[in-house]
Amino acid sequence: MGDLNGPPFFDVVFAQRAHREFADTPIDDAVVETILRAGTHAPSAENKQPWEFVVVRDPATHAAIHDLTEAAWNASGRAFSETRLPPELLKEVDQGIAGGGYRTAPVLVVVCADFTRGLPMTAGSSIFPCVQNMLLAAGALGLGSALTTLGAVAPGPLAELLGLPDHVVPQAIVPLGYPARRLGPPRREAVAAHTHRDRFASPW
Amino acid sequence: MGDLNGPPFFDVVFAQRAHREFADTPIDDAVVETILRAGTHAPSAENKQPWEFVVVRDPATHAAIHDLTEAAWNASGRAFSETRLPPELLKEVDQGIAGGGYRTAPVLVVVCADFTRGLPMTAGSSIFPCVQNMLLAAGALGLGSALTTLGAVAPGPLAELLGLPDHVVPQAIVPLGYPARRLGPPRREAVAAHTHRDRFASPW
Repeated sequence: MGDLNGPPFFDVVFAQRAHREFADTPIDDAVVETILRAGTHAPSAENKQPWEFVVVRDPATHAAIHDLTEAAWNASGRAFSETRLPPELLKEVDQGIAGGGYRTAPVLVVVCADFTRGLPMTAGSSIFPCVQNMLLAAGALGLGSALTTLGAVAPGPLAELLGLPDHVVPQAIVPLGYPARRLGPPRREAVAAHTHRDRFASPW
Repeated sequence: MGDLNGPPFFDVVFAQRAHREFADTPIDDAVVETILRAGTHAPSAENKQPWEFVVVRDPATHAAIHDLTEAAWNASGRAFSETRLPPELLKEVDQGIAGGGYRTAPVLVVVCADFTRGLPMTAGSSIFPCVQNMLLAAGALGLGSALTTLGAVAPGPLAELLGLPDHVVPQAIVPLGYPARRLGPPRREAVAAHTHRDRFASPW
């Protein structure tokens, strides 16, 4: 990890995409640790840094996490998303989960909130900036990643699998891997379409 | 905004601090728009991009938002934090809110979630990655910022002030300004202290 300065900031930010399929190139612990270190530099409520990371490489645990996520998807996630997602995105997510794309990630990071260090009310504002730093850092290091929460929506089975104490609650599962293929540029709506000057509906 | 590539990614990430006092240097709309554009490149649940930004420069609206935040701090925030924060951080936050430090920010961005585009359940995982991109982009452009949520905890008065429809709910208030002074390096706990291998409490 000699040169830790990385590529230009905005190149990383404007290239971010969700990856749902990965090459089988292994990931060094040092790379994972850099990604986590970037995560820990995010702000958190009262600077309590309430994150706990479980880095999963063990094949049995890895497979069990995917089984849980796939079960949640098959039970209700897909049916829910069918009415909400454009067909091409639905297909992509379906291939990531049910088609096994996420299973190709060499590393999964389960990002949890410790409710003795942060309040449940502020878990979102404390954990998701950290997760976003992780995703950006992965991109800066040439890896792909995604922000997934489906496997953490009903946290009981995941908590049991990972031996989490009651006060440590999964918030997100981040697959990490070198990209299986290069993704095109992301599509986003124009800033001006969602920006208001001083008051809602006053044009930017 | 000629060169939008920015400084090296990890330099930006590892230097992030919360700013609570700003210089009176004005901020161009183009700089604000770059920060918002970075925000919109964050991931969101189902890629619904449910953010709405209200950019506040108007002095009366700006002052009213600070009044709301200060009232929330005086009513219960400070008393709550007194038992939880180290004295120097409590003093810093108190100076930012009651001491008027945040009032020196030339721009406030109220970041809202549109609940017709994103579910309340996924507001946190959709909005806070966006906010984190904004904070990092501000740093990359030489500005200071902070993630504040106190003024959005009881969103009613803020929604009324900004004329928000019922389905657009404030999630965070981000002050933007050029830093009043250079801040030292952030302090963070070691990654290994909060990282587990395959299972909770198994050392990294």
